[in-house]
Amino acid sequence: MDLYNIEDPSFLKNKSEDELKEIAQEIRDFLIESCAKTGGHIGANLGVVELTLALHKFYNSPKDQIIFDVGHQAYIHKILTGRINQFDSLRQYKGLSGFPKLSESEHDVWEAGHSSTSLSAAMGIAKARDIKGEDFSVIPIIGDGALTGGMALEALNHIGSDKTKMTIILNDNEMSIAPNVGALHNMLGRIRTNTNYNRIKYDIEELLSKIPTVGSSIRGVADRVKDSLKYLVVNGVFFEELGIKYIGPVDGHNFQDLERALKSANEANGPVLIHVITKKGKGYHHAENDAVGTWHGLGPYKIETGESLGSGSTMSWSEFMSNSVFDHALVDERIVALTPAMPVGSKLHKFQNELPERFFDVGIAEQHVVTMAGGLASYGMKPYVAIYSTFLQRGYDQVLHDIDRQKLNVFFGIDRSGLVGADGETHHGVFDLTFLLPLPNMVVVMPRDEKEAQMMIDFAVNYEGPIAFRYPRGNVLGIDMNEERPAIEYGKWETVKEGKDITVISYGPTLIDVLDASEELKTKGINVNVVNARFIKPIDTELITKIAEQNQPILVVEEAMLAGGLGALVQSFVMDYDLKTPVKRIGIDDQYVEQGSVPELLEEVGLTKENIVNKIEEIISNEKN
Amino acid sequence: MDLYNIEDPSFLKNKSEDELKEIAQEIRDFLIESCAKTGGHIGANLGVVELTLALHKFYNSPKDQIIFDVGHQAYIHKILTGRINQFDSLRQYKGLSGFPKLSESEHDVWEAGHSSTSLSAAMGIAKARDIKGEDFSVIPIIGDGALTGGMALEALNHIGSDKTKMTIILNDNEMSIAPNVGALHNMLGRIRTNTNYNRIKYDIEELLSKIPTVGSSIRGVADRVKDSLKYLVVNGVFFEELGIKYIGPVDGHNFQDLERALKSANEANGPVLIHVITKKGKGYHHAENDAVGTWHGLGPYKIETGESLGSGSTMSWSEFMSNSVFDHALVDERIVALTPAMPVGSKLHKFQNELPERFFDVGIAEQHVVTMAGGLASYGMKPYVAIYSTFLQRGYDQVLHDIDRQKLNVFFGIDRSGLVGADGETHHGVFDLTFLLPLPNMVVVMPRDEKEAQMMIDFAVNYEGPIAFRYPRGNVLGIDMNEERPAIEYGKWETVKEGKDITVISYGPTLIDVLDASEELKTKGINVNVVNARFIKPIDTELITKIAEQNQPILVVEEAMLAGGLGALVQSFVMDYDLKTPVKRIGIDDQYVEQGSVPELLEEVGLTKENIVNKIEEIISNEKN
Repeated sequence: MDLYNIEDPSFLKNKSEDELKEIAQEIRDFLIESCAKTGGHIGANLGVVELTLALHKFYNSPKDQIIFDVGHQAYIHKILTGRINQFDSLRQYKGLSGFPKLSESEHDVWEAGHSSTSLSAAMGIAKARDIKGEDFSVIPIIGDGALTGGMALEALNHIGSDKTKMTIILNDNEMSIAPNVGALHNMLGRIRTNTNYNRIKYDIEELLSKIPTVGSSIRGVADRVKDSLKYLVVNGVFFEELGIKYIGPVDGHNFQDLERALKSANEANGPVLIHVITKKGKGYHHAENDAVGTWHGLGPYKIETGESLGSGSTMSWSEFMSNSVFDHALVDERIVALTPAMPVGSKLHKFQNELPERFFDVGIAEQHVVTMAGGLASYGMKPYVAIYSTFLQRGYDQVLHDIDRQKLNVFFGIDRSGLVGADGETHHGVFDLTFLLPLPNMVVVMPRDEKEAQMMIDFAVNYEGPIAFRYPRGNVLGIDMNEERPAIEYGKWETVKEGKDITVISYGPTLIDVLDASEELKTKGINVNVVNARFIKPIDTELITKIAEQNQPILVVEEAMLAGGLGALVQSFVMDYDLKTPVKRIGIDDQYVEQGSVPELLEEVGLTKENIVNKIEEIISNEKN
Repeated sequence: MDLYNIEDPSFLKNKSEDELKEIAQEIRDFLIESCAKTGGHIGANLGVVELTLALHKFYNSPKDQIIFDVGHQAYIHKILTGRINQFDSLRQYKGLSGFPKLSESEHDVWEAGHSSTSLSAAMGIAKARDIKGEDFSVIPIIGDGALTGGMALEALNHIGSDKTKMTIILNDNEMSIAPNVGALHNMLGRIRTNTNYNRIKYDIEELLSKIPTVGSSIRGVADRVKDSLKYLVVNGVFFEELGIKYIGPVDGHNFQDLERALKSANEANGPVLIHVITKKGKGYHHAENDAVGTWHGLGPYKIETGESLGSGSTMSWSEFMSNSVFDHALVDERIVALTPAMPVGSKLHKFQNELPERFFDVGIAEQHVVTMAGGLASYGMKPYVAIYSTFLQRGYDQVLHDIDRQKLNVFFGIDRSGLVGADGETHHGVFDLTFLLPLPNMVVVMPRDEKEAQMMIDFAVNYEGPIAFRYPRGNVLGIDMNEERPAIEYGKWETVKEGKDITVISYGPTLIDVLDASEELKTKGINVNVVNARFIKPIDTELITKIAEQNQPILVVEEAMLAGGLGALVQSFVMDYDLKTPVKRIGIDDQYVEQGSVPELLEEVGLTKENIVNKIEEIISNEKN
């Protein structure tokens, strides 16, 4: 059939199994070809082709509400709801989102980018349905990795006791971003691979059938046992204990099995979990074989080989950070590394392989990873927690209540700080300063290049107390690491370039744009003093005072939210101490930033060389008036 | 024995059961008498007298590390570690903390005030132990309520798969602050009350014993069944499925049973959970019978009757808010109320009793409650989430990612905003603005009195979008509710009192101190313009501009962190727009605030009438120079 003619999923209702298989193949072919050009979460989507088709055949979306956890596996759903002609722009600026998006379609009923939210959302929607006395199905689809996130477990606990009718699809592909860890994962593994569990039940049933039916006191006991069989350990007892009916395991690539399970779940009066086994990358050899690595959220690739067509050979920031911390760990036995399910993204392989007893991948469990690091620190270790800025939001209370308040010696490596590009508004690392800077004991740093990063890591490893080390997505600059630079001093900023007309304060890679702007301004006769605020907290009050005394106006430029950012801190300091110098800011103003390439997004929020030049000219012209 | 002579718990080693019982009685008598004077979490502590004695007899603290979850049940631990003579100052300014405190004793190895952190901390400490090759026990003690917090479940998932040696004490007193809810609670209840589970196993064993031992094909099957008996559902299968050995249930008031369980757990090589059943308030009639209500975290009481000696009859803010929302709910069917385990603290009884189908107590599950509210809002309901400011920290990512980003129509009632008093630094509600104000779509309000609160609730109920409504701990003012006031307008501030010399901007109850200060200043010839920033976000830029144009200096006074507070927003606005008027601030400067009465703490952080007067005089005198 012509996938481009699909307007909504109703056409699936009358399709035979053979027709469905054909459609599945067409969708796979389309996805492999389309994502080869645009990039995207191809592996996760190839795994749920049959599942998504089965769901849309069985249910009536949007009346029935299908909620994708995390959401990057909704490509087939987008195709079935009439969006195939937008796939050329997938994950691009102003293009089709890589996640469900309320504004794209009435079939997208919930947005997600962070994991483990679907069950809570489903619970809310189901209760709204029940209160209004309406009748429709609520179907959250959650991966086995996302299930270990604390909020998903909180939701299961509530759903199971409340007995709210919904069909939970557990999409068990044996790995989230990295291979899953944790006891729940082990349990699902036992179900997948072990027949022991079911066998017991069958064995006992067989035994009972063979017991003589007359005389003897055996009969009464046998009857009681028969009654009690429902309590025997069978597959899914974990869920059954939580009050949720378990169906499975079901082959997620078999339409008949899926339909039977959906039908059976639909007949129940309370919550049901269908344990669906899928294969990530199914149907595309190169994705099936490397479901862990490059095939999670990738760029364009060559179809024949699966080879990435992506960026060159420069080292990524993640790799640089992890390698440097690893080098320290070789000589400093206090250092341990922790990650919440991101050993690949955070490039921690070397640490994981060479120092396995000092490495912890805790799964999708951001709250636990932070406080566990606190426990390690409280007994003399120096934990390095590699975590994406956007996911650290999940551990905020733990950073405050457990780490900062107790002044524990935890070193946070905050990956993907700043704008991240194609993952869009759920993933930009632009809020961390707003919640870290107000913490009384926290030190926050960000290097302008890898040379400074190396010096800062030396500093951070030897610092005693909570320290947050921000670094961006993307690659390091590739500069000369042998360059001599003055040592880093606690709370002191670096004057990168001297000038008398205006001071621009910035940090991280943004400093490059500031330096470029200052070069351009030099040709116009404006001399810019460029300061590297390598310590975003504590701020260098001595230097700010000196600058103010020289009557230099100040501009703070940062790739972060303006509210609660460094610029706001500098403005407050100048105001509080009557320093009488104007302080202006360029940063992200009270908005969520959409998806796009990082340069496109920097342009959108005004973080460009041109805008810095214009702003400086405006400030200087104001000063003269 | 003389409890006052205790220096450390080592004296317990040689005590007989009878002696332990005697000590337990003495400790109970002491606690009931002492807390009658000072107040404190008497109920929770009376429940763990025997348990704490048993732990300190069996283990060697501080080498063995005992970690109290939440921590308000550590009074007996404090007595046994030589702190009884400080109980006069319990929960008072500069006095003995109501929680474990690193600075008080080497026996306090971890601080907590928020729930569900102990397992993660224990995991960190245990791994540090193993990495260092040391040998000691790690014993987290967690309540059945705290166990439902997502981070505790994340930790269980990790501990069970890692097989880390530790003894987890599940202190099951059948209620956290409110009676527990959720499937885990139901499961624990089945274990406590039901013999079904164990009976199955016994029944099958009996059956097997009666099967003829010769001939027939039964034998082989019977043997297999026998082998498989270990897989049968027994108590604690939920924990066993997670890879954690379960022992229990154990009577938490029986020394022999406790010791036997501890010994057995200690012999295991991996993680063990001992399910201990305790009775909250044990041994004090009035506490046993009202473990839910006033007996959680209470003030002084009359020993004979259990009657509170506390504050008069004015209505609390919590009650006022809940009642007002309930009144709206009677006529507006979209309104539902949610609480994470705080129906009592947030005074939601009336809602719970009269509109049970629209009321949700989700247990200790702050992440879930926020996103569930989002789900309800996404299907047309108007959820009111009553949550303490300090606990909302746990749901920060959900507020950002699920509610604010999707602009969902959720009404947050942020209870205990500002300083809370005796619970101290883990509980002050002074960080919420730092993380709420930078959220692009969030509206934040706080009323100066209950009349304004009522008007604001009317506003909030009809507002479409995320709105955070802060209100303080303590009682409303008791003012005349019939007073006529102009309606509330979105984003507009209220000039409470006109003056020409300086503008003071404040919000909430702090405005009273500001008004008092302005009265005093009037006698000194200074006329203060007092502005009520009822919308903390969005700020009233028009009014600020007008004030600046009149060349009035501005002082912002707030009971919140200075970094990221309203004052910082006003300073930034004035700086960004070159308004050339000084803006100063009084608030909480980059520090954790300890425990004490609210007036003592306000004094400590400088939020007093006197300090406001002084600051204003200083600003005006500076202006004249």
